Amino acid sequence: MSETLRLPSWTDIEQAVRRIDGYVHRTPVLSSRYFNRRTGANLFFKCENFQRVGAFKFRGACNAIAALPAETARRGVITHSSGNHGQAVALASRLHGYQAVVVMPDDSARVKVEAVREYGAEVVFCAPGTKSRDDAVQELIDRHDHVFVPPYNHPDIIAGQGTAASELLGEIPDLDVILAPVGGGGLISGTAIAARHLAPDIRVIGAEPRNADDAARSFHSGKLEPASPEQTVADGLRTTLGPLNLAVIRDHVDDILTVSEEAIIREMRTVWERMKIIIEPSCAVPLAALSEHDMGINGLRVGIILTGGNVDLDALPW
Amino acid sequence: MSETLRLPSWTDIEQAVRRIDGYVHRTPVLSSRYFNRRTGANLFFKCENFQRVGAFKFRGACNAIAALPAETARRGVITHSSGNHGQAVALASRLHGYQAVVVMPDDSARVKVEAVREYGAEVVFCAPGTKSRDDAVQELIDRHDHVFVPPYNHPDIIAGQGTAASELLGEIPDLDVILAPVGGGGLISGTAIAARHLAPDIRVIGAEPRNADDAARSFHSGKLEPASPEQTVADGLRTTLGPLNLAVIRDHVDDILTVSEEAIIREMRTVWERMKIIIEPSCAVPLAALSEHDMGINGLRVGIILTGGNVDLDALPW
Repeated sequence: MSETLRLPSWTDIEQAVRRIDGYVHRTPVLSSRYFNRRTGANLFFKCENFQRVGAFKFRGACNAIAALPAETARRGVITHSSGNHGQAVALASRLHGYQAVVVMPDDSARVKVEAVREYGAEVVFCAPGTKSRDDAVQELIDRHDHVFVPPYNHPDIIAGQGTAASELLGEIPDLDVILAPVGGGGLISGTAIAARHLAPDIRVIGAEPRNADDAARSFHSGKLEPASPEQTVADGLRTTLGPLNLAVIRDHVDDILTVSEEAIIREMRTVWERMKIIIEPSCAVPLAALSEHDMGINGLRVGIILTGGNVDLDALPW
Repeated sequence: MSETLRLPSWTDIEQAVRRIDGYVHRTPVLSSRYFNRRTGANLFFKCENFQRVGAFKFRGACNAIAALPAETARRGVITHSSGNHGQAVALASRLHGYQAVVVMPDDSARVKVEAVREYGAEVVFCAPGTKSRDDAVQELIDRHDHVFVPPYNHPDIIAGQGTAASELLGEIPDLDVILAPVGGGGLISGTAIAARHLAPDIRVIGAEPRNADDAARSFHSGKLEPASPEQTVADGLRTTLGPLNLAVIRDHVDDILTVSEEAIIREMRTVWERMKIIIEPSCAVPLAALSEHDMGINGLRVGIILTGGNVDLDALPW
């Protein structure tokens, strides 16, 4: 599972665009009179909540799996995830004709387990925690020679996630600022590479829950900082930053802002009420940053990646 | 408030399209891999939940208010509504520079009262019930010479609502079937006139809660039938059919199907989960009809008007 990874570049994103064509939805870009009035800016929302499996994660998984040599992938694809990446790998594998195994903690929500199975993957349970998860994956790789598709710390994943910003800037070329949430850093690093190439003067801003602020700390210290002990409602952002992701972020991201749990929940609800679209808590983090930080965006054109819409409707956070 | 009303025609819809241009959003048409697979048909969802004020009602109100002679409208516009029509009249009046009064029952949800006020209208409360409501409106008209904008029984309202189907058929011309919910009948009658003109062979189907089935009964008996005593979760469809609406429906609608409360709630939730968009209970009624009736749509192209997305997020029906 460990190898020395090269930094991805714009060329990788161009290649990803071609690889995922026909598999991935070209998602719509929405605007909102309400949020424009409230922020004084002109906001453009790239709606990856409408992406297949309900999240941008499908882009990276689809690109990484399409990039595998067929003889390797035929041995089976494996990943670990209790969330959107597992569904993304399951569906992308099925569409490419490969078997997939998703290692999930045995306390995963049943609806998430069912979703992974519905996309045709085998689910293998492990005890909760990073160590048991990694051990379970390694054991299956040792036994079956499966190929591992990591959730964020890989150039093909980063390049795949970068295709969302590339589509957004293709449609709205003159953005002044682009915002995305930060968890493991796959999305923000892909976004930064695409944005830097397509709009060199753009400001690239990451947004992170204050209760899971290892990326903000790592960005400022220049080295990978340990996970925060707090919990966050933004379940998609509980992972810690990857080393490759930090390297890209240090080169191309202008700032990482942190936000409160209250603002995440409030902005999630406001999007539901005002825009009539379903977003998950992680997805509201950039909007929380707009409400809690003076970003000097008055009169500017701001792109926001809405990352996903997978929510348990029986356990809403308000 | 009573006058002899002429039947609206396609010419009225053409005129409405021009009148509301620049005020009304051209809403997107979405598709859903999940619903296509489940129904065997090719479904096209016209998303009026993304319309201004969150519902198609803005089209009719905007057309009716734009059609008023300015000297009449300057005396003030009045309506009664505990729901989307009140917000629609409030916003359309403000955009046209007129004062609006909305009579609302004094047990209305506070969030709905606030929404009407936010759009700049004056709210006058009355006791709940049709009689007190009509009395309150009449008293204000007698005193201030306001002009009444009815919720559905008027050619300009019907023509305005018909612009949604006209946009849908402009974008997807070869529909075999078009579906819309039925409450007072403004939407289904406008939809039927537009569809009959633009696609003469199309099947126009209305869908109604079984617990509020006066339109289905009126459609079959040929005369206005009394309200059903039951309650329905589809709060936008609790009104009874208007006489003008029945006349149009008898001329142009092929059938009105009724559905269970369970199916309405289930399909509402399924749209949230699968399409990641917010729809209100009334809006799920045509999808409930697809699940409870064999409509022979396998392989056909079916348009569905998604009517609105105004939901109390603290009181979801599941």
